[in-house]
Amino acid sequence: MTTHCTNPNMTEELNPQRTEINEYGEFGLIDYLTQNITLKDPTSKLGVGDDAAIMEYGDRQTLATTDLLLEGIHFDLSYCPLKHLGYKSAIVNFSDICAMNGRPTQLLVSIGISKRFSVEDIAELYDGMLAACEAYGVDLVGGDTSASLTGLTLSLTCIGEVEKGKAVTRSGAQKNDLICVTGDLGAAYMGLQLLEREKRIFKGEKDFSPAFEGHEYLLQRQLRPEARKDIIEQFAKKGIVPTSMMDISDGLSSEILHICKSSDCGCRIYEEKIPIDYETASLCEEMNMNLSTAALNGGEDYELLFTVPLALHERMEEWRGVKVIGYICDKSDGARLVTRDGSEIDIIAQGWNHMEKEKTDGQVAQ
Amino acid sequence: MTTHCTNPNMTEELNPQRTEINEYGEFGLIDYLTQNITLKDPTSKLGVGDDAAIMEYGDRQTLATTDLLLEGIHFDLSYCPLKHLGYKSAIVNFSDICAMNGRPTQLLVSIGISKRFSVEDIAELYDGMLAACEAYGVDLVGGDTSASLTGLTLSLTCIGEVEKGKAVTRSGAQKNDLICVTGDLGAAYMGLQLLEREKRIFKGEKDFSPAFEGHEYLLQRQLRPEARKDIIEQFAKKGIVPTSMMDISDGLSSEILHICKSSDCGCRIYEEKIPIDYETASLCEEMNMNLSTAALNGGEDYELLFTVPLALHERMEEWRGVKVIGYICDKSDGARLVTRDGSEIDIIAQGWNHMEKEKTDGQVAQ
Repeated sequence: MTTHCTNPNMTEELNPQRTEINEYGEFGLIDYLTQNITLKDPTSKLGVGDDAAIMEYGDRQTLATTDLLLEGIHFDLSYCPLKHLGYKSAIVNFSDICAMNGRPTQLLVSIGISKRFSVEDIAELYDGMLAACEAYGVDLVGGDTSASLTGLTLSLTCIGEVEKGKAVTRSGAQKNDLICVTGDLGAAYMGLQLLEREKRIFKGEKDFSPAFEGHEYLLQRQLRPEARKDIIEQFAKKGIVPTSMMDISDGLSSEILHICKSSDCGCRIYEEKIPIDYETASLCEEMNMNLSTAALNGGEDYELLFTVPLALHERMEEWRGVKVIGYICDKSDGARLVTRDGSEIDIIAQGWNHMEKEKTDGQVAQ
Repeated sequence: MTTHCTNPNMTEELNPQRTEINEYGEFGLIDYLTQNITLKDPTSKLGVGDDAAIMEYGDRQTLATTDLLLEGIHFDLSYCPLKHLGYKSAIVNFSDICAMNGRPTQLLVSIGISKRFSVEDIAELYDGMLAACEAYGVDLVGGDTSASLTGLTLSLTCIGEVEKGKAVTRSGAQKNDLICVTGDLGAAYMGLQLLEREKRIFKGEKDFSPAFEGHEYLLQRQLRPEARKDIIEQFAKKGIVPTSMMDISDGLSSEILHICKSSDCGCRIYEEKIPIDYETASLCEEMNMNLSTAALNGGEDYELLFTVPLALHERMEEWRGVKVIGYICDKSDGARLVTRDGSEIDIIAQGWNHMEKEKTDGQVAQ
């Protein structure tokens, strides 16, 4: 074997041709890197491009999803306690399994730890993850632990299971299907705005007390989200299998566009139907921010976005905690938001795109 | 819910009580963090503490393993080209599945990318991983991509499968079992020594040409290792199921102690029986290093260490590429190396322990 390393420079040999990562964005980069991949193993049923991969063994399907969480990009320890970070990082993965109509069963956790952290700190992080595991009936079965030169690195992989034929992907939405969301949207984003505002104010003051009163729900949504395992259980109980589904981690706009792209269709979303909590609306007004922007692009709500056949309209309307917000249409009709005044505007993904949001000073919005 | 974040400081709140991570070491930390974990889900068969976790679905068992690779800790891009890094990072995971007597089937890849890297760089890294997938019949089925503030972060998770009853853990070694290793040991470590030597020499010279001639095997072992899938296939063909097994990633000393601990036994390893390649021995002499130290503690060989019943002695001796290096004894007899002069010394794990090896200047041996 000849090795490339025999270059006489012994210096880092990066490619002389350079296309900057942010020209592609996160999803563009993934598409580019995985464009030639075909699945060959008989157990591989679904690969890159959904909330989780699907493997099939007999009449059972196994799901696998993984998330990388980096300090300074995905979390800021100045307002996110380690225990909450642990809880949330597990939930983010459980949510991906739920988004496939599956049940999370096992978790693998890798941690890179810099010298700034003590055993007690890491134990707190673990406590949070184990609390999430306990709450969702998931077993922590493995992982990897390493030193890190810079900050905290977390990588979690969740395994789940789903009955054969019941897995729901992003690609099954059909024309006239109803578009539904669970819970409410935008609260996690406003929780983040609140935390960032208080952090900014604090920088200039000595005896500072953050103004969190009346915003407890927003903080909870940002710092201690939940995965909608309850909804998956309800689907099973009601005998409903959505035609498509994903979880809302990057924002409603971004996610519905993923479903439209994967299902080769268009959509109409009614602005007035998007479920929004009172606290979200109230803080938006206080901070002079656009409410629909928060709800459409906020992200991190970990609610479920799914489609069902039109025939289920009545059952959906009756389902407390689920809201019909629009319908699937032909691809040629585009993916549009119907605003409160009845006009239509194209939906554009302005969700969290880490690749574009990265700034050199280490301050990243999410 | 009350959140911890309502602390009025809005500053990072790490634990006031501090036990430094290196007081525990990597394995001590994992033991500490996972001490109270019990498996509850019916599909969870084996958790933390082996090369991979085991999930059971009907008559099939699924394996899952994960590895975190951080720039400056696990790899140095000044002598490890991105394509090789991609290949090696996949192999490391495949090797963990082989170490359970399994067949790697799917790979999930998460990458954190700093601005230093271009699309072309990441494509090269991917090319390496996909080449490994192709060679081992593994499908790349998912992952996550994110910006990183500092360097390259890789997290790989490999899924594999094994027939029910055929999975081999670290805990099944019995008294009188033979201890065997595949291939040869210490070469990857000497390859690293060579690369580091040339890097040091280069620092002071302008027209520098690294002296790699005659050391090709060592470089290959360090930069482009392979997982012993061929041995697993031979086990199946020969109808042999080892009583215990693991792969040699941290070094023979460290790994045999893991088997002794998990199997609650002791061992004798014969120094003279440890398989060592000519190039390894030759460079050791040239660099005035201890050969047995390289073979015992070197790590990164990704060979298999396994035990079989004494009755298989003849078949093992006949098996080209497998070497019997010792036997399992009572725990009370200790874990010892029988040196060339017949004396016995306790085996001590001096393998790669990143937690202890971390240095503040970013230069880490491995």
